[in-house]
Amino acid sequence: MNMTNDNGSRFLRACRRERVDRTPIWLMRQAGRYMAEYRKVRERHSILEIIKTPELACEVTLQPLDAFELDAGIIFSDILPPLEGMGLDLEFTSGEGPVIRNPVRSTRDVEALRVLPANETMGFTLDAIRLVRRELEGRGVPLIGFSGAPFTLACYAIEGGGSRNYLRTKQTMSATEAWRDLMDKMSTVVADYLVSQADAGAQVLQLFDTWAGELSPRDYKNKVMPYTKSVIEKVRQAGVPIIYFGKNMNGMLEVVRELGSDVVGIDWRIDLDEAWRRLGDGVAIQGNLDPAALFDPWDELKKKAKVILEQASGRCGHIFNLGHGILPKTPVDNVRRLVDYVHGTEVQKT
Amino acid sequence: MNMTNDNGSRFLRACRRERVDRTPIWLMRQAGRYMAEYRKVRERHSILEIIKTPELACEVTLQPLDAFELDAGIIFSDILPPLEGMGLDLEFTSGEGPVIRNPVRSTRDVEALRVLPANETMGFTLDAIRLVRRELEGRGVPLIGFSGAPFTLACYAIEGGGSRNYLRTKQTMSATEAWRDLMDKMSTVVADYLVSQADAGAQVLQLFDTWAGELSPRDYKNKVMPYTKSVIEKVRQAGVPIIYFGKNMNGMLEVVRELGSDVVGIDWRIDLDEAWRRLGDGVAIQGNLDPAALFDPWDELKKKAKVILEQASGRCGHIFNLGHGILPKTPVDNVRRLVDYVHGTEVQKT
Repeated sequence: MNMTNDNGSRFLRACRRERVDRTPIWLMRQAGRYMAEYRKVRERHSILEIIKTPELACEVTLQPLDAFELDAGIIFSDILPPLEGMGLDLEFTSGEGPVIRNPVRSTRDVEALRVLPANETMGFTLDAIRLVRRELEGRGVPLIGFSGAPFTLACYAIEGGGSRNYLRTKQTMSATEAWRDLMDKMSTVVADYLVSQADAGAQVLQLFDTWAGELSPRDYKNKVMPYTKSVIEKVRQAGVPIIYFGKNMNGMLEVVRELGSDVVGIDWRIDLDEAWRRLGDGVAIQGNLDPAALFDPWDELKKKAKVILEQASGRCGHIFNLGHGILPKTPVDNVRRLVDYVHGTEVQKT
Repeated sequence: MNMTNDNGSRFLRACRRERVDRTPIWLMRQAGRYMAEYRKVRERHSILEIIKTPELACEVTLQPLDAFELDAGIIFSDILPPLEGMGLDLEFTSGEGPVIRNPVRSTRDVEALRVLPANETMGFTLDAIRLVRRELEGRGVPLIGFSGAPFTLACYAIEGGGSRNYLRTKQTMSATEAWRDLMDKMSTVVADYLVSQADAGAQVLQLFDTWAGELSPRDYKNKVMPYTKSVIEKVRQAGVPIIYFGKNMNGMLEVVRELGSDVVGIDWRIDLDEAWRRLGDGVAIQGNLDPAALFDPWDELKKKAKVILEQASGRCGHIFNLGHGILPKTPVDNVRRLVDYVHGTEVQKT
């Protein structure tokens, strides 16, 4: 289904807001527990083992591309491993999710954070990208690299895991110097990691800013945006399109637009056409099906997908995706039907 | 500070979008753990004991009104007790929060839910309202009653507690008849409970729709809004102003406006003036300081409060509040300073 030249692929064309024959589709966390193939690998390996073994990361990255006609792959990893390179002890527990045993709690902790080149700390993921690119050669399916955004990484570093109110993070934000130093380090690490992924072969990059939506627009603008923007600028200078994805940011899309990313990923809590109106025509948009919709009977799921395609119609630059990662028990048949339905729908001309 | 006639109070005037001398302020969950007086009562009584003992509920309701110059009281209760009257076993655990031991998982469970008058099931809260009104006589501070909105109660009833993805709820929503029957029952119970609170003396009512922001605008509109709207209509027919509060709904404020509430409560993830633009002039607005801002140094907190007051200036109908409930460890001094600062700021004339 995909054209053989990656640069002419639907996905890359949509990132550049060029005309496409069919709407490209990929799914956040598309290599994941809903696939029997993935669960089989997980029986023998922990998440961190898969991430740190390029052959395994490559295998898992390719699984959804072999199973469905997806228009892009995304390298298998997680947003948190770069924190290990900075000196934080990361663990994925089965109950609590990711936990950092030595979180950042003082200016001394901020000072102690290391800023090393991604080539030294994240070599396994860079190698995995090289492997996947080799495997994908001739298939016309581009590969996405990604990183957590500086703010979201700072949240995990400070809170030591998930959080209800991000109170420690928000208090650190009022401690002006400590926050600046922390965000400087996060931004340097993230920008270098993303550019290194591009060098290794990633053709598009995505910044996951999972927790940015916990901030007021004012705090986001004053204390986070300058750092995120500098990362986005560095990636764009490297000539690679970048997708910025946040959730619960629908009250500040006008601010998100100012970040200057090529594509904005939106969650499902807003109509896609409404989001695009607020973001303006100068940006491509990725989204925005509720991941829970994949559990609906097909008729209902189809209706929901149709509404999204209709809301996007008449404009260039829509990439179909979920509004958040695919859920663990998602029925595989619905994934296949959805991908085929999106590809079967003609893109309406302007 | 408050005028002696409740009807002429700042808070009620603002609900009706009438001119006020100073912006009224109250805080969601203002009777709570951040107050030493409250913690003292909690040492001897569980949350459900306080709720079910009108004298205790009254005592706790009055605590913040004695400590700060707040412009409204809110009856001490929780959104979940009405579920007990419907036949669900509610428990507040210290670790997990509220838990329902016999959640609604089948059409038979939906059928089994009882719909009884609030006078029979929630008499303790209605009595507490009567007690508080007597205590507040002559103080010119109106009393707010409240309920969980039908959707949010349905979430708890189905999930049995908090949830990450509300997948069970969303799947029930696709089972058209079960969902309709459940929401019919919830709406009947909620409307009757709110009107009964008004009869008992509550002067304003608030609907808490904590989880509505987990839905897409389309699902909200098709499967939730008609029920919420019918509740709001019944309350307004009883002649009492109603506040609708949801969080993470900033992508669908245009839909929220259609509910027809007198006041819309917004979270802090949007600028207040931007929210008001989307809601239109026909509605009062309540909010929207980030609860975490109360942990900031006073100078920073003051700046944040000032921005909100400035964004509201020139229009009638702003009620200052947090964008969500006050957090357990909030410094009491900052609460006092905030209330006094809001009252010390002159309302700008249009």
